Amino acid sequence: MIVILKHGVDGEKRDQLIQWLKHLGLGVHVSEGEYQTILGLIGDTARVDMDLIASLGIVDSVKRVTDPFKCCNRKFHPADTVVEVGGVKIGGGNFCMIAGPCSVESEEQIITVAKAVKAAGANILRGGAFKPRTSPYDFQGLKATGIELLKAAREATGLPIVTEIMSTNYLPLFEDVDIIQVGARNMQNFDMLRELGQLRKPILLKRGLANTLKELLMSAEYIMAGGNEQVILCERGIRTFDDYTRHTLDLAAVPMLRELTHLPVIVDPSHATGMARLVEPMALASAACGADGLIIEVHNDPLHALCDGAQSLRPEEYAVLADKVRRVREVVA
Amino acid sequence: MIVILKHGVDGEKRDQLIQWLKHLGLGVHVSEGEYQTILGLIGDTARVDMDLIASLGIVDSVKRVTDPFKCCNRKFHPADTVVEVGGVKIGGGNFCMIAGPCSVESEEQIITVAKAVKAAGANILRGGAFKPRTSPYDFQGLKATGIELLKAAREATGLPIVTEIMSTNYLPLFEDVDIIQVGARNMQNFDMLRELGQLRKPILLKRGLANTLKELLMSAEYIMAGGNEQVILCERGIRTFDDYTRHTLDLAAVPMLRELTHLPVIVDPSHATGMARLVEPMALASAACGADGLIIEVHNDPLHALCDGAQSLRPEEYAVLADKVRRVREVVA
Amino acid sequence: MIVILKHGVDGEKRDQLIQWLKHLGLGVHVSEGEYQTILGLIGDTARVDMDLIASLGIVDSVKRVTDPFKCCNRKFHPADTVVEVGGVKIGGGNFCMIAGPCSVESEEQIITVAKAVKAAGANILRGGAFKPRTSPYDFQGLKATGIELLKAAREATGLPIVTEIMSTNYLPLFEDVDIIQVGARNMQNFDMLRELGQLRKPILLKRGLANTLKELLMSAEYIMAGGNEQVILCERGIRTFDDYTRHTLDLAAVPMLRELTHLPVIVDPSHATGMARLVEPMALASAACGADGLIIEVHNDPLHALCDGAQSLRPEEYAVLADKVRRVREVVA
Amino acid sequence: MIVILKHGVDGEKRDQLIQWLKHLGLGVHVSEGEYQTILGLIGDTARVDMDLIASLGIVDSVKRVTDPFKCCNRKFHPADTVVEVGGVKIGGGNFCMIAGPCSVESEEQIITVAKAVKAAGANILRGGAFKPRTSPYDFQGLKATGIELLKAAREATGLPIVTEIMSTNYLPLFEDVDIIQVGARNMQNFDMLRELGQLRKPILLKRGLANTLKELLMSAEYIMAGGNEQVILCERGIRTFDDYTRHTLDLAAVPMLRELTHLPVIVDPSHATGMARLVEPMALASAACGADGLIIEVHNDPLHALCDGAQSLRPEEYAVLADKVRRVREVVA
Repeated sequence: MIVILKHGVDGEKRDQLIQWLKHLGLGVHVSEGEYQTILGLIGDTARVDMDLIASLGIVDSVKRVTDPFKCCNRKFHPADTVVEVGGVKIGGGNFCMIAGPCSVESEEQIITVAKAVKAAGANILRGGAFKPRTSPYDFQGLKATGIELLKAAREATGLPIVTEIMSTNYLPLFEDVDIIQVGARNMQNFDMLRELGQLRKPILLKRGLANTLKELLMSAEYIMAGGNEQVILCERGIRTFDDYTRHTLDLAAVPMLRELTHLPVIVDPSHATGMARLVEPMALASAACGADGLIIEVHNDPLHALCDGAQSLRPEEYAVLADKVRRVREVVA
Repeated sequence: MIVILKHGVDGEKRDQLIQWLKHLGLGVHVSEGEYQTILGLIGDTARVDMDLIASLGIVDSVKRVTDPFKCCNRKFHPADTVVEVGGVKIGGGNFCMIAGPCSVESEEQIITVAKAVKAAGANILRGGAFKPRTSPYDFQGLKATGIELLKAAREATGLPIVTEIMSTNYLPLFEDVDIIQVGARNMQNFDMLRELGQLRKPILLKRGLANTLKELLMSAEYIMAGGNEQVILCERGIRTFDDYTRHTLDLAAVPMLRELTHLPVIVDPSHATGMARLVEPMALASAACGADGLIIEVHNDPLHALCDGAQSLRPEEYAVLADKVRRVREVVA
Repeated sequence: MIVILKHGVDGEKRDQLIQWLKHLGLGVHVSEGEYQTILGLIGDTARVDMDLIASLGIVDSVKRVTDPFKCCNRKFHPADTVVEVGGVKIGGGNFCMIAGPCSVESEEQIITVAKAVKAAGANILRGGAFKPRTSPYDFQGLKATGIELLKAAREATGLPIVTEIMSTNYLPLFEDVDIIQVGARNMQNFDMLRELGQLRKPILLKRGLANTLKELLMSAEYIMAGGNEQVILCERGIRTFDDYTRHTLDLAAVPMLRELTHLPVIVDPSHATGMARLVEPMALASAACGADGLIIEVHNDPLHALCDGAQSLRPEEYAVLADKVRRVREVVA
Repeated sequence: MIVILKHGVDGEKRDQLIQWLKHLGLGVHVSEGEYQTILGLIGDTARVDMDLIASLGIVDSVKRVTDPFKCCNRKFHPADTVVEVGGVKIGGGNFCMIAGPCSVESEEQIITVAKAVKAAGANILRGGAFKPRTSPYDFQGLKATGIELLKAAREATGLPIVTEIMSTNYLPLFEDVDIIQVGARNMQNFDMLRELGQLRKPILLKRGLANTLKELLMSAEYIMAGGNEQVILCERGIRTFDDYTRHTLDLAAVPMLRELTHLPVIVDPSHATGMARLVEPMALASAACGADGLIIEVHNDPLHALCDGAQSLRPEEYAVLADKVRRVREVVA
């Protein structure tokens, strides 16, 4: 950590600050320039309150030199992490195609969709059992029953399953789920992240609507610090002033995250745009800029979907998309 | 709900849509204009997927006429809600002054600060026992011990206490806490909101960093739908491109919320700005635009605070602020 | 335009509003529903102040049914506009590759770069003569000399040239420029747009940092209303809370704009990201989601560029990118 | 400027960088820490491309130590600037009350409003003659006639006048205008700013919708670098995801700007919120947090205003507001 003092700072105050920093157990390397004095702090700077130091009258600014994320940092782990689940690999050049309905609605629905997306090229099945809804009066998902139906669909197709958790109270229900999804609204539910860190099961961590890439990595760090290193990151749109699409898909986050971390990075163009007709172009763009996979909503009957029908593709549309994604991947991979 | 069809839409498709809407149990009132056809939907439109209808080829746009929030809607409950706790009233013309340290650190610290803020004019004590920290490596709070120390400070001063909950697993620890705070990062932790709705205890609900006022009200609705009507809303800054302050304090939300809802609305200028020297001006501005209270960080020794020292006022600074706030209130109330 | 009145509105006030609207020369079609009254306004509603009507006590909300943009609206002009300049076509399936240095620095530099980008696959040359710089103390461009050097480079390579205008005072200097660029900061410089509408020369209109797609289209409308229909739109990143890249490239704007308008839509990944190593992935993503072209900064010696060297590719990097873009286009076109 | 090199950087590359920096005419002070090497650059660092250096492979990050704004920097000019116009002072403890209609519509209208706002406590008259409108089909202002009518209103009331310029082509028309306003959309119209810097007349510079405080100060710097030091800054709302108000009024910018610069800082609550009923609370909040003045839209007949009637106060509402503002100022000043 580097502390830049204000020009012409009083010598006594400077020495007091240095003493105080040393009392925190830090080494302090003083560099007197012509225009400013710089303190280089050495030691366990993770415990230093950067904002507090910056607020001191004699300090111009403070800068961290080392990233606060370690387990997920590519600097310390250059090779891509490959997450493996039910015979499917994600990351390290392995592209995953996760597809399925927004909500699990019935056995017939989920098995029909599962077979259709498998035929169209998907290798993992998604489906919501617990649904985060803005309104308490909206459909909240089939819950435990929904998870049972997902397992039936896995049985019928061989596809591993991913579904969202909304409270660790339900953790026992997720024991036999292949990948647990943490939704955007829970990205900084730190207690939940910590509990998921105790599992040895892949976690699909979606970026929050207003979270920076660093915050997303810090949330992955919560999981990994507990020993669970199978984290998949997911860009799904951020909140901006723009109002044509539901959210603004931040695709530059994909190459940026791939540089910062060794974890796989996938994209959810369905929730990002909220419009079925934008899913294919944004899926192709995601593949083109280096994503490790896609999670896409597919429904056999979007008009009668209980949730998010507006952004669901039909299986035949998904098959066209999947084929184009494969061909784009051949160009860029 | 109003559905506006596209100009020149095919009659057969229009009739199909009307039939489908009627099958959903809705009344449909058709109004043929010169330039467009408008369908007025009557009945339980809360269960209709607005986005799905908007995505249909023949539909131009869809508009809700009724607000999706009911319990907290001022239209249905014109009088201000007054929350009462330990003899202190909030709302309906009663201004609350919540103050205390970011984190509870020790018995001496919390009792010293509690006495100081009481002397300076605070009527409720705040203090963090469970701390939401971006990094898993940062200080996470004293947890159960922190809550015990808050109770001791209440014993010593008579001030009711408010502290943040991070997981409903800890709910038993909050049994004797006066007000439970839901932090910005958990504003859409819907399972937590629903559980808090089962209590009969005031909830201080902070606005999320990227949440609209409507979403804040829908989260209040989750709590109130369970029967817990004592909700206090709190504006604490939103995330924008601006980088001088930690967040952007959206003060126009205060009069806007007071118009939309009967619930009390308070402001947290400490977390919004992240800078002690901006707390007084923004506290005065909050009082001037009609807030029902303030929640402010005060620490007897900000330099040695374990968390957020940079934004904490000293008790003597808080006393000056409290006095000015009182005088601004006399002008505007 | 549709005006939705509040539930239970007073009949006399309703009639006053209807009279007032009729005095504005509008036809008013009244539709009395069970829960609300809707007024359908017919006639020249473009002159009606929507916000004013919405602010009236008896009005719930107001909604425009017709888009405010006409000349650039695909509804009224379904076929793609193809802009032609110096033998190069843009739009309607024709992909343009605009490349060149941020600033024109010297004759040798611009001719060297022009030859290099042409060899690498570019078909239009860009180069800044007038530079919009945040600071008055930064390099402001070679101005008139810069334009002369661009013409020399066109002479040497045959590439048409595009360069930015910062004030219509300089319009005479742009007489022999092939495409005039309006920068993001001038997207709502309405007087400039109107003057450019008097020309019969292609205008490259960049989206402003905080502008919606509708506002971008309204700015195109300013140019087209004057009779100049050769407008090329350019997405170049918007301002959001995110801080890893310089701006947030909003790629979903590409398919969305292509749906709303018949004008060509290109992307500038260099300014959007500000980082050379993100230019290739975002260029490929742009091609994948349907852009009509790319504008990319290329410099033979980025380390010594007078401006924006950090985001410039070397010619050999651009050649690799151009080849991959071609192959992605084969998949998606 | 401080350049922090990556850990374990190659010595030869480091020396090359140092040589290159010295060739730019800079002094380089090398500080070797245990974990990193820091270069302190001395000299005319304003001409150094920070982003370019940051993009080099061996560089971790770059940090400016000195602010890029000089003329408007409070560090170099601690005393408040007081702008004087027609006997009215702005800044340095002098609060200005600018009021008037959005657009000048007729002689009767502007004189009626001018007298009314003067009676209600305004000391400067505003009124739009050239109107920046998103749509080319909206009312664009009375232009030269509008300015003549403003002068007539000044004649009738003695109030100095302020009105917006949209192109420096019209500069001669503004010769006898007291304060020239630069609108939010032109905040980075650098050519215009430079021309206004040649005048010796107060400039009211509005913050752009997506501009940081630093960018606002840099735009003030463009004007002041030309020798025109009478600049008044105006916060008028920024663009965020929030959709209840037209823009998000960023009031913390007021105390922050007052710390960074000696220039007066005023607030426009009318354009920020777009709703008449939010103007009073936000005006009071502005006064409470230390603004040097307010610019507010007042119209004698908002229902028939040609522009922005929805956000205009009636004179009697303005009188109430003005009185409360005075009393809030007594508390905080």
